Amino acid sequence: MDASSLLHDYASRILSGRRDAFTSAVEIAGSELVLHVDGVGTKTLVLQASGRLWVAGWDCVVMNTNDVACDSARPVALVDYIAMPSTDENAFKSIIEGVRKAARETGSILLGGETAILPGISRGIDVVCTVLAVRGRGWSGNRAHVGDVVVGVESSGLHANGYSLARKIVEEYMGGYDTRIDGRRLADILSTPTINYAGFLLEAWRNKLINAAVHVTGGAYTKAKRVLPDKAEMKLTLPEPPKIFRALLEAGNVDPWEAHRVWNMGYGLLLTTNPDNTKQLEKLARKHNLKTTILGEVRQHTTKTITLETIYGKLTY
Amino acid sequence: MDASSLLHDYASRILSGRRDAFTSAVEIAGSELVLHVDGVGTKTLVLQASGRLWVAGWDCVVMNTNDVACDSARPVALVDYIAMPSTDENAFKSIIEGVRKAARETGSILLGGETAILPGISRGIDVVCTVLAVRGRGWSGNRAHVGDVVVGVESSGLHANGYSLARKIVEEYMGGYDTRIDGRRLADILSTPTINYAGFLLEAWRNKLINAAVHVTGGAYTKAKRVLPDKAEMKLTLPEPPKIFRALLEAGNVDPWEAHRVWNMGYGLLLTTNPDNTKQLEKLARKHNLKTTILGEVRQHTTKTITLETIYGKLTY
Repeated sequence: MDASSLLHDYASRILSGRRDAFTSAVEIAGSELVLHVDGVGTKTLVLQASGRLWVAGWDCVVMNTNDVACDSARPVALVDYIAMPSTDENAFKSIIEGVRKAARETGSILLGGETAILPGISRGIDVVCTVLAVRGRGWSGNRAHVGDVVVGVESSGLHANGYSLARKIVEEYMGGYDTRIDGRRLADILSTPTINYAGFLLEAWRNKLINAAVHVTGGAYTKAKRVLPDKAEMKLTLPEPPKIFRALLEAGNVDPWEAHRVWNMGYGLLLTTNPDNTKQLEKLARKHNLKTTILGEVRQHTTKTITLETIYGKLTY
Repeated sequence: MDASSLLHDYASRILSGRRDAFTSAVEIAGSELVLHVDGVGTKTLVLQASGRLWVAGWDCVVMNTNDVACDSARPVALVDYIAMPSTDENAFKSIIEGVRKAARETGSILLGGETAILPGISRGIDVVCTVLAVRGRGWSGNRAHVGDVVVGVESSGLHANGYSLARKIVEEYMGGYDTRIDGRRLADILSTPTINYAGFLLEAWRNKLINAAVHVTGGAYTKAKRVLPDKAEMKLTLPEPPKIFRALLEAGNVDPWEAHRVWNMGYGLLLTTNPDNTKQLEKLARKHNLKTTILGEVRQHTTKTITLETIYGKLTY
């Protein structure tokens, strides 16, 4: 049996097996290969308006590499896909600059890509990446345990999720992107690059400091359900969210339950850890220039539940 | 050094090396892993109009798997990406049905995907796939040799390239998609699925029946330059193209030089082979239900050149 047939057999076997991860993998020669795709969505519209399109390239890579690193997989290679209504060389160059920068900083190699000019299909620019990542044998899966402490890692803002809602609020109720909060234009606040958590996450997995890692993206806090045992509750007490989230929520009169389902509200990662490891995990985060907060715990419960104590009251998912 | 670090080192080394292929690869444990992305482009607009959106999913996979199989890589896994302006569950289901069907028939496993709802960015539906493929060690590269015979493998129509031009002609000069050619509506003719060549190509490579394989897609016949030695000409005599190509070319008054740079004009693959292997290659194609024609040869020349003798005259690239 040659290597490719062997890979094929492994592949069929693995796919039906692994349910304790956010990403899917095939197996070759003792390594699991993860293939994962994600795009930047409508954040690109804000980035274009603020002249920071390079962030679309950066975010496109980092959204993916954060996802795979949450599942203990190291980014290895990537391809990008950019769709636009007509050829815009400057936009393309900016985006690729961001892709290259993020590829370098996450240790992945840009293997190629496709730029599609799609009159009739595209109205704006769509930026998408697929990442190939590798994980050594023996990973125990992305599973929180009852008794775990939950540590939040700060985000740099909205990252790349919830922009359709945010844009609607900014445009309809906040006077547009030139409005300032604490002296900064909304255009700039909403153009902040997503934090690259991959190096930190991979070191945390390698040192067995975490049991579960959730990248707070689409679905936000509800995503944590995926790592919970059946009869467990993740109970978090969230401090007052950063000002941009409060401003959007209040200006748009957004239901807090909805807000915590769409936006990260200040935390880009939720990690669960054995209480004995909390100090070491916090130390590792500091080494990677990341700020952490102990947000709560995982405990026994009748059903799989996420409970958030927030300044807007108690929210249950 | 653990498996992932090892892979990383291989990766850095390989990327700068391989220039004799259409696709790029990283190496692990003796296998080269190819990562490749491509979309269906504006064909999706025709498919939507003809109610055959499943073909967008099919083509999206097959465009990629044909590409990697031209470089002797076997499709293993894939992820899809679908962007649309608003949630359209029926469209999504049709597309995924096509993706699944093509994944099954090309032996690749659908590992996941992303559906993005992008008001403000999408006007129509964009369908994209990324394929992970594997190639055993020892492949000699995608290189035509002087003295090779060139064999064309028939296409089923336009496949998924040149639709922006085709649509313009149909809409402006041919009276729209209900116009019939030989009793068939243009909507149907232009909704034909792309042929899956992967099984045939991989068997041809495995049996060492070909030296080079060109998937006639974007760039059409000009793509063959990529596999030519520096001082060689690929000289082809193309028979009268299938009726749809003649009809488009004539109705749109398209320059034949441009037509052969945009459309496949009847051949989805160009293969080069040692003359001794031609008969066996043709036999293998018949086994895979593919029709072949000997189109010409590769010969010494002062510069890298593609020459096409066509019913519209001689064309040079």
